[in-house]
Amino acid sequence: MYEVLQNINSPADVKKLNIEQLKTLSGDIREALFNRLTKIGGHCGPNFGIVEASIALHYVFNSPQDKFVFDVSHQSYPHKMLTGRKNGYIDDACFKDDSGYTNPEESEHDLFNVGHTSTSVSLACGLAKARDLKGQKHNVIALIGDGSLGGGEALEGLNFAGSELKSNLIVIVNDNQQSIAEVHGGLYQNLAELRQSKGKAEHNFFKSLGLDYVYEDNGNDIEAMIKALQKLKDIDHPVVLHINTQKGKGFELAEKNREAWHWCMPFDKKTGAWNVSFPAESYTGLTAQYIMNKAARDKDFVVITPAMPMTAGLSPDLRQQLGAQYIDTGITEEHAVAMASGIAKAGGKPLLVTNATFIQRTYDQISQDVCINNNPVTIVLNYASFDGLTDVTHLGIFAIAAFSNIPNLVMLAPTSKEEYLNMLDWSVEQKEHPVMILMPGNMVTSRAADKDFGALNTYKAEQAGEKVAILALGDFYQRGEELARHISKELGFKPTLINPRYASGLDEKLLSQLAQNHQLVITLEDGILDGGFGQKVAAFYASSSMKVKNYGLNKEFYDRYNPQELLEQLGMTTEQIVADVKKMLS
Amino acid sequence: MYEVLQNINSPADVKKLNIEQLKTLSGDIREALFNRLTKIGGHCGPNFGIVEASIALHYVFNSPQDKFVFDVSHQSYPHKMLTGRKNGYIDDACFKDDSGYTNPEESEHDLFNVGHTSTSVSLACGLAKARDLKGQKHNVIALIGDGSLGGGEALEGLNFAGSELKSNLIVIVNDNQQSIAEVHGGLYQNLAELRQSKGKAEHNFFKSLGLDYVYEDNGNDIEAMIKALQKLKDIDHPVVLHINTQKGKGFELAEKNREAWHWCMPFDKKTGAWNVSFPAESYTGLTAQYIMNKAARDKDFVVITPAMPMTAGLSPDLRQQLGAQYIDTGITEEHAVAMASGIAKAGGKPLLVTNATFIQRTYDQISQDVCINNNPVTIVLNYASFDGLTDVTHLGIFAIAAFSNIPNLVMLAPTSKEEYLNMLDWSVEQKEHPVMILMPGNMVTSRAADKDFGALNTYKAEQAGEKVAILALGDFYQRGEELARHISKELGFKPTLINPRYASGLDEKLLSQLAQNHQLVITLEDGILDGGFGQKVAAFYASSSMKVKNYGLNKEFYDRYNPQELLEQLGMTTEQIVADVKKMLS
Repeated sequence: MYEVLQNINSPADVKKLNIEQLKTLSGDIREALFNRLTKIGGHCGPNFGIVEASIALHYVFNSPQDKFVFDVSHQSYPHKMLTGRKNGYIDDACFKDDSGYTNPEESEHDLFNVGHTSTSVSLACGLAKARDLKGQKHNVIALIGDGSLGGGEALEGLNFAGSELKSNLIVIVNDNQQSIAEVHGGLYQNLAELRQSKGKAEHNFFKSLGLDYVYEDNGNDIEAMIKALQKLKDIDHPVVLHINTQKGKGFELAEKNREAWHWCMPFDKKTGAWNVSFPAESYTGLTAQYIMNKAARDKDFVVITPAMPMTAGLSPDLRQQLGAQYIDTGITEEHAVAMASGIAKAGGKPLLVTNATFIQRTYDQISQDVCINNNPVTIVLNYASFDGLTDVTHLGIFAIAAFSNIPNLVMLAPTSKEEYLNMLDWSVEQKEHPVMILMPGNMVTSRAADKDFGALNTYKAEQAGEKVAILALGDFYQRGEELARHISKELGFKPTLINPRYASGLDEKLLSQLAQNHQLVITLEDGILDGGFGQKVAAFYASSSMKVKNYGLNKEFYDRYNPQELLEQLGMTTEQIVADVKKMLS
Repeated sequence: MYEVLQNINSPADVKKLNIEQLKTLSGDIREALFNRLTKIGGHCGPNFGIVEASIALHYVFNSPQDKFVFDVSHQSYPHKMLTGRKNGYIDDACFKDDSGYTNPEESEHDLFNVGHTSTSVSLACGLAKARDLKGQKHNVIALIGDGSLGGGEALEGLNFAGSELKSNLIVIVNDNQQSIAEVHGGLYQNLAELRQSKGKAEHNFFKSLGLDYVYEDNGNDIEAMIKALQKLKDIDHPVVLHINTQKGKGFELAEKNREAWHWCMPFDKKTGAWNVSFPAESYTGLTAQYIMNKAARDKDFVVITPAMPMTAGLSPDLRQQLGAQYIDTGITEEHAVAMASGIAKAGGKPLLVTNATFIQRTYDQISQDVCINNNPVTIVLNYASFDGLTDVTHLGIFAIAAFSNIPNLVMLAPTSKEEYLNMLDWSVEQKEHPVMILMPGNMVTSRAADKDFGALNTYKAEQAGEKVAILALGDFYQRGEELARHISKELGFKPTLINPRYASGLDEKLLSQLAQNHQLVITLEDGILDGGFGQKVAAFYASSSMKVKNYGLNKEFYDRYNPQELLEQLGMTTEQIVADVKKMLS
């Protein structure tokens, strides 16, 4: 077990091996991948496919003198195993020592914390530029997948490298013929032509940008990869090495179903069954149901997902059913949002769904193309919660602060299944506003809800009370309910409970009325406080005698935290808030 | 004068003309451009160069049934003249009726408010997609300049069009061999090859993306352009029409110096002299001075400007002097920021300068590539003020709200020449933090300043006083001084005046101390209130008895306003604030 891998403590150990040992090492690495992934899950297909290339990289180059940048770093596990971090894969007790992404805090062999795509070429251009200014001589290598290649930042970087950087830069395009789901765009036809012609096709995207280009068909062959890299080592200009690899290589299920095994939960190695039980009903599932029903009834309705169809619950067969009413743009959030604005302008009804963390990639298009033009685009954000993705590169806690302050954008924070679906349908149908909806991150709950949200910024008083008013936004509404119950029970009066519904504006009339019989307003929100909802409420009351207390997260890049523990640290449990209230009222 | 143009009231009138009349029309349009530009300035070179193409577009296609999208819309003046808006150019009294950009509120022939680049292909894809869903048949035409073409969003759009959209879309690439400054990137070598070979070069960027491609060498010849467009009208798939034009065509000075005449102030037609007097000293000029001195002393220092060298005061000769220490990435903000992060990681000292409105285009790279990695990149924003650019697409009033809430980013708001330069130098030298500096938007003032800003969030009490504390941020510090003087004089006590310096965090110690002898805290900031600085202060005091009043702008897309009138409308003049204070203290 791990015959070769167990003795690898740094890249120097890789260089000592002969070809047979390197091949054994590739088997060990795959066993180690199984060990970690079956038990705690993570990125699967990308790592199985890049084993040989990673070994060859460390065999040929000298990290950390030579610099590797892993795009999105979904494929960095083998690299981690070869750079002193094998225990994070072969020793169950050490799983937590290793993040699922490159991480400079773990190793000098990792240069950046990376979890969003399409950044590697630009980051590598920067490393190369600084090297040149300092008169140094090492190699800079960016490894980027074909899926990431279609993102605008990567295209900008390649265009720059093609003429402005006149020194060593090796861009390895890891072409496994797959993004997270399938790939989309003309570039991918060109990659196919290049594979079919072994790099000799008439049209060559990379050469058209002025880049030198080399093709290697056997990206999963260690010897071939070593030879290819040895030829490029110390090259004096930028070059693209286009390698053909098999996503999921060595794991049959992942080879066959590349989308399902891009990322995985803990699973049974033999059957592939995931060792988790999903709730019968989820907001993602409800989204898919809504989409399918709506699309069948309304031919103007179009769903757009930039490379993340599963954030809308859209499995391959559902996408197939949607036909022309579904667009996967690939990893191109900017294009996706601007196109949605065009669709809305021309009378279509576009719904764009993605993860909260990725919507940041198209801030300017939301502001300029959508909101200045006030086009009725609906954007739904999945994982817009502290309680969803907890890796530092994937946090959903910044969405309210980042987007609720863009003029014209109506940000809705639903609090139940009915409210979510009603908001979704209202938004898709109306023609007045761009709308962003925060898909609830908690368990599905049921409660009657309004159907028309056209009277902007009208909050809903769900329970009338006195002394204390609780404004519990979206996801945190259920915490507000719990808090109200505890205050009633423990402090002996019934507080007012409000469902704000709109994260992007104040109900000034209702807030003014609260002054009559309340001394304290509490805000609860599922995001950072700075720039968020509660601070707007605080500012509203700031020159009055009303006391306000905001509860939410700090402006901080949290990483791999326990959500419940974080709430406690922040003094946000129901017990802690009740204690605060008691104190503030006294 | 305006023999033909004066009778053009809609595109239908263009279609009635014969070739000679169309040629006369092109002369009329150029005269009309001179009339407006010499008197009120605006985008110059792009409009002179696109006259013939605009006439041909309206001659061949039927707007508004056929849909035109003008990228960045720097080149939309001739189109405006042909669509019922000639008076905005030939009648001085009507100049104000017309914005400098396409604007749906002006005409049904304008589909989007556009002022940022690289969006047209995606917007047009959206129009085409909606058309197809509705079973309509019109043409959709995107007109994009070669400068805008290198932006990631445009590249994403072309990639999409190349394979996903299988219906009519005509992308006209207006190649005038110039961005705002010169063009940068391998793509531009390919455009040059295509021009030289009349479209027949071995490598073809557009074909490599699966796009059909047609070349027209005579983009400033009306007949040639009409013929080229007639061939493409009603085409059943996406096509790129690459046209060769002369930027500034028909205005000799603009033909010769394309960068200087991209945009202009009012000028003398004969001499080209601009009829404006610039102050002897400006923050932009100080930036250029700092850059030149620093670069000469420190070889690790690199300046990056994404296509906007003049925002850092870097004229062509200064750029030349900087040599390898200067990078113009072209219009690629995402690449520029990620590259800066790479440079910083490798020990370089990157300084990136651009307009506040354009930094939005790289929100995610600032958050992920720079701030999560905490790499010491310095970003200076020009025009981060309500008092700079007033077109709706170029507002600088959102920068504080958008960026001060990103963790790890230190946002500095200098209040004088000395403080600006000291902050700049401190930031470039330190290795601990990513820093964003808001270049003051007002006149240069002089005042002693600290040199070390490493003790984050320490505000500077510039005048100790009582009752009222004024926190006057950055640009608005001088307004704070004036307010303090008026309060002293009119209300009979000396208020405290604080220069917060840090827009991204609170000096909790100082704020707590204020409670001892102050009842009211006033915040002044040059940006929208929502998500900004003052609301953080309001939230800090919200559960105490301190009253807070925030002054700043509303969350609104203001357009072509008078800055002084806006302040009055918002109740932000010194007189109005003094009256508020009097009332709040009583």
